[in-house]
Amino acid sequence: MKDDAPTALDLPMVDPLPPETQKYFDICQDKLGMVPNVLRAYAFDIDKLNAFTALYNDLMLADSGLSKLEREMIAVAVSSVNKCYYCLVAHGAAVRQLSGDPALGEQMVMNWRVAKLDARQTAMLAFATKLTETPHLMGETDRKGLRDVGFTDRDIWDIASVAGFFNMTNRVASASEMAPNPEYHAQAR
Amino acid sequence: MKDDAPTALDLPMVDPLPPETQKYFDICQDKLGMVPNVLRAYAFDIDKLNAFTALYNDLMLADSGLSKLEREMIAVAVSSVNKCYYCLVAHGAAVRQLSGDPALGEQMVMNWRVAKLDARQTAMLAFATKLTETPHLMGETDRKGLRDVGFTDRDIWDIASVAGFFNMTNRVASASEMAPNPEYHAQAR
Amino acid sequence: MKDDAPTALDLPMVDPLPPETQKYFDICQDKLGMVPNVLRAYAFDIDKLNAFTALYNDLMLADSGLSKLEREMIAVAVSSVNKCYYCLVAHGAAVRQLSGDPALGEQMVMNWRVAKLDARQTAMLAFATKLTETPHLMGETDRKGLRDVGFTDRDIWDIASVAGFFNMTNRVASASEMAPNPEYHAQAR
Amino acid sequence: MKDDAPTALDLPMVDPLPPETQKYFDICQDKLGMVPNVLRAYAFDIDKLNAFTALYNDLMLADSGLSKLEREMIAVAVSSVNKCYYCLVAHGAAVRQLSGDPALGEQMVMNWRVAKLDARQTAMLAFATKLTETPHLMGETDRKGLRDVGFTDRDIWDIASVAGFFNMTNRVASASEMAPNPEYHAQAR
Amino acid sequence: MKDDAPTALDLPMVDPLPPETQKYFDICQDKLGMVPNVLRAYAFDIDKLNAFTALYNDLMLADSGLSKLEREMIAVAVSSVNKCYYCLVAHGAAVRQLSGDPALGEQMVMNWRVAKLDARQTAMLAFATKLTETPHLMGETDRKGLRDVGFTDRDIWDIASVAGFFNMTNRVASASEMAPNPEYHAQAR
Amino acid sequence: MKDDAPTALDLPMVDPLPPETQKYFDICQDKLGMVPNVLRAYAFDIDKLNAFTALYNDLMLADSGLSKLEREMIAVAVSSVNKCYYCLVAHGAAVRQLSGDPALGEQMVMNWRVAKLDARQTAMLAFATKLTETPHLMGETDRKGLRDVGFTDRDIWDIASVAGFFNMTNRVASASEMAPNPEYHAQAR
Repeated sequence: MKDDAPTALDLPMVDPLPPETQKYFDICQDKLGMVPNVLRAYAFDIDKLNAFTALYNDLMLADSGLSKLEREMIAVAVSSVNKCYYCLVAHGAAVRQLSGDPALGEQMVMNWRVAKLDARQTAMLAFATKLTETPHLMGETDRKGLRDVGFTDRDIWDIASVAGFFNMTNRVASASEMAPNPEYHAQAR
Repeated sequence: MKDDAPTALDLPMVDPLPPETQKYFDICQDKLGMVPNVLRAYAFDIDKLNAFTALYNDLMLADSGLSKLEREMIAVAVSSVNKCYYCLVAHGAAVRQLSGDPALGEQMVMNWRVAKLDARQTAMLAFATKLTETPHLMGETDRKGLRDVGFTDRDIWDIASVAGFFNMTNRVASASEMAPNPEYHAQAR
Repeated sequence: MKDDAPTALDLPMVDPLPPETQKYFDICQDKLGMVPNVLRAYAFDIDKLNAFTALYNDLMLADSGLSKLEREMIAVAVSSVNKCYYCLVAHGAAVRQLSGDPALGEQMVMNWRVAKLDARQTAMLAFATKLTETPHLMGETDRKGLRDVGFTDRDIWDIASVAGFFNMTNRVASASEMAPNPEYHAQAR
Repeated sequence: MKDDAPTALDLPMVDPLPPETQKYFDICQDKLGMVPNVLRAYAFDIDKLNAFTALYNDLMLADSGLSKLEREMIAVAVSSVNKCYYCLVAHGAAVRQLSGDPALGEQMVMNWRVAKLDARQTAMLAFATKLTETPHLMGETDRKGLRDVGFTDRDIWDIASVAGFFNMTNRVASASEMAPNPEYHAQAR
Repeated sequence: MKDDAPTALDLPMVDPLPPETQKYFDICQDKLGMVPNVLRAYAFDIDKLNAFTALYNDLMLADSGLSKLEREMIAVAVSSVNKCYYCLVAHGAAVRQLSGDPALGEQMVMNWRVAKLDARQTAMLAFATKLTETPHLMGETDRKGLRDVGFTDRDIWDIASVAGFFNMTNRVASASEMAPNPEYHAQAR
Repeated sequence: MKDDAPTALDLPMVDPLPPETQKYFDICQDKLGMVPNVLRAYAFDIDKLNAFTALYNDLMLADSGLSKLEREMIAVAVSSVNKCYYCLVAHGAAVRQLSGDPALGEQMVMNWRVAKLDARQTAMLAFATKLTETPHLMGETDRKGLRDVGFTDRDIWDIASVAGFFNMTNRVASASEMAPNPEYHAQAR
């Protein structure tokens, strides 16, 4: 792939980008110091980019009984099962930043079970991991496990949706050899 | 769960539905004879419903080098790995309808390898299955396998995206015990 | 394989069939509207055919604490683990017919855990599935689980024997690419 | 289980045994110095015993392009995948006796790949092992692999049937905790 | 490999061996009737041989809350998971010798769960097996399981260390195709 | 475990440490700014500590056809399969330091296949990974794969030995919940 290409697929960005998209990318550049490669990867087709970002923003940023950090923890734990380099790098950095705890980010990447988490977050990650590994074995017992530590049915939906989303995006990234922006590596260490 | 509830989670639909949503559901009822339960499941939050349907419609219905039948074949082959009852029932029916070949639908559900497919579709389903089972093993060899039978890089993106999408939705359905509408079972047999 | 051959192996039926065998096949044709391909596959050697049918008939049709439907449910649940196209098609049809419940047949094929079964049948299928997937882990705890829901030791033998039998026949069918008779697909939908 | 019971299930032998069965058991005692526990286990129901022995004798003793030793090698290689104590002990002894090579028996039990086999037997065991582990992946390539080293289609049927049979009997033995006769251990060492 | 070579790698022993090593090998020959091939395999580099034997002797022969037989049982149970021919042959013989129970040696090789062990040894082997198969799932619950049947923290360390050691040596043996000395096969049958 | 304890086992260090050991720990403190917890963990028994460090130093620091970086790459790739937190943290830091390439360390932790390696290092890590995951499948083909990219038989031994060693130490660390020194996290980022 070309040095700067976000994936191993030859799918150049729309050029020029529509003004809305350009504005969104400019905001990323300003706030994050980069345009995340996942956005550049989708930008060969603006409808696909918009559908992806709408779903992503709803899941990861909209109101939820899960904190943003918790959603990022799920993202990394799921990506660890699937060994997705892009997502582990990008969302591992997010866990480090949101938690202020560099070791927590590493634990989510390497084996979340070693982290000293409370019962709520343990149940949340156990559910997300089982859902990733053996979705056909999920049942009422698993949902009860979440309710028992205080999650609502809406929270269960959100845990499943975030876990599901990264099972999707892990595969798009792995299939296309999506490269994480190098800026992530040193962040919040 | 209540007899008519689309999932085992207590997440009732917004009531009344916004006019746009109601109109969409009415069209489903007219054209399909039902509102697919996945839409009723998401309708507890209209933003989530809209984000889901926008992504779904782009992937499954928009222009692509993959036919609609091929995208449904990927959907079912992926759902077979994940043993997702909702998606196997709903998209198995779609394969039967689009192909006019009831046995093909069963083959996608049971073991796609027994189907008598050409090299293109065999490569497509082999890629989607490997991406589902062992995403971390995907590499240039796998992409080359698709290019060798005539797929473009855009097609590869679409194969990965459809496979990825059903890895998401299989998990949301399995986690929430989403029930397929009974109408699917007898369709196109 | 030839269009009409029951498997991908070149093993033509004894010709002419012995009178006993011909009579058996005629009865099949009358009662079922077809001679199941598994019988045609074995008919290259009448001793093998007879040994197979004697075992099959004893297991699936003779007296047992398990109903015929329950034995067919085990057949399909086991064949689902092994993804055996022949057995899923043929015995999926049997579950639909014996139960009068098309959805139950689909559930056994796709993921038996989604079916609304009582404790007895749930334990029965859990035992058969574990025995299929990890036979070396079976132990007294598993047998106790069956006894606790009312199964006798003779019933346990029958569950194990039916599950075992389909672990055999799934493999003969998969190794030989046995094709299910097309008549099954539309039955009892 | 009682000290002398062949399994952990309370299924006593028919008493007295029918004359035919008693005669068969007497022959075993004379020729083998024991009645194999698998026969004693089935003897709670003579029809089941007869169906089992008819199939067993056809597969393991009747004419075939596979030698008796080769069929026993398949038996043990399959039982090794399934970790079936009964079958590994009983058929491991058979491999030692038929081959006159104690190490060969151990290799079949422990990991057949370490044995110095010719291309024919290597292909035979590779097929039987794959059929045991991942029956849904079998295809024309696997059959071609056997034909390439000289096996006929009838031989392929026999390899699949023997492998299939032990996938059945491994599970009946494991589910019932069938105990191998102690005489086997020291045989042909 | 040459008929007498201990592995498939061309790594001849230092020649002549240093006096200390020669003396050690002479003692082996006297006491065991052979020099175990693992020692001959390492003897291409005396530092490596010494490091290996120092660790081995500490783990398997030094004082411990585990008996020597128990350490050999762990060795074989671990080697069974990894299907290591060398270690199963050599340490299977050790279990037979130390226990005076040939069947126990076979059970450790074939499937330790069928052995009639007390709660202590069952817990010990369950821990060692889980540690071998899924080390990332080990946690406080597993350690508590050992403490509950009377193991001390030092014992837990020893169980883990012996299980770990055979996970190492199984892999060195398998990678190099290490051949067990033929003398082991008939020992203590 | 106590805040400062190196593992979850109550195995305090010998106190005072023997002068040799104390001197070794002092050197660690001077050169590394810490005493690695794996050494503190073993220091409850000085013979065990010495056996461990002798083997470790021979494998990781002595002359070899593999560079020290290559040995650390194997260490991390193996530890990634086993999801060993201690080893991933400690040896991930070593890869970053020895290579001067922080991304390389992350790639070894997350999925080594995404790294842009030459044929030699790719073959080396493929061998180490297969040896970790399925040691029973190793054979001459795998050794030939290493020889084809220039490795000698001695190099093959070293690859197998390093991979084997981390399969041991991953399990000791996981069983005892060994905690990596916090200093590693920020090193060489």
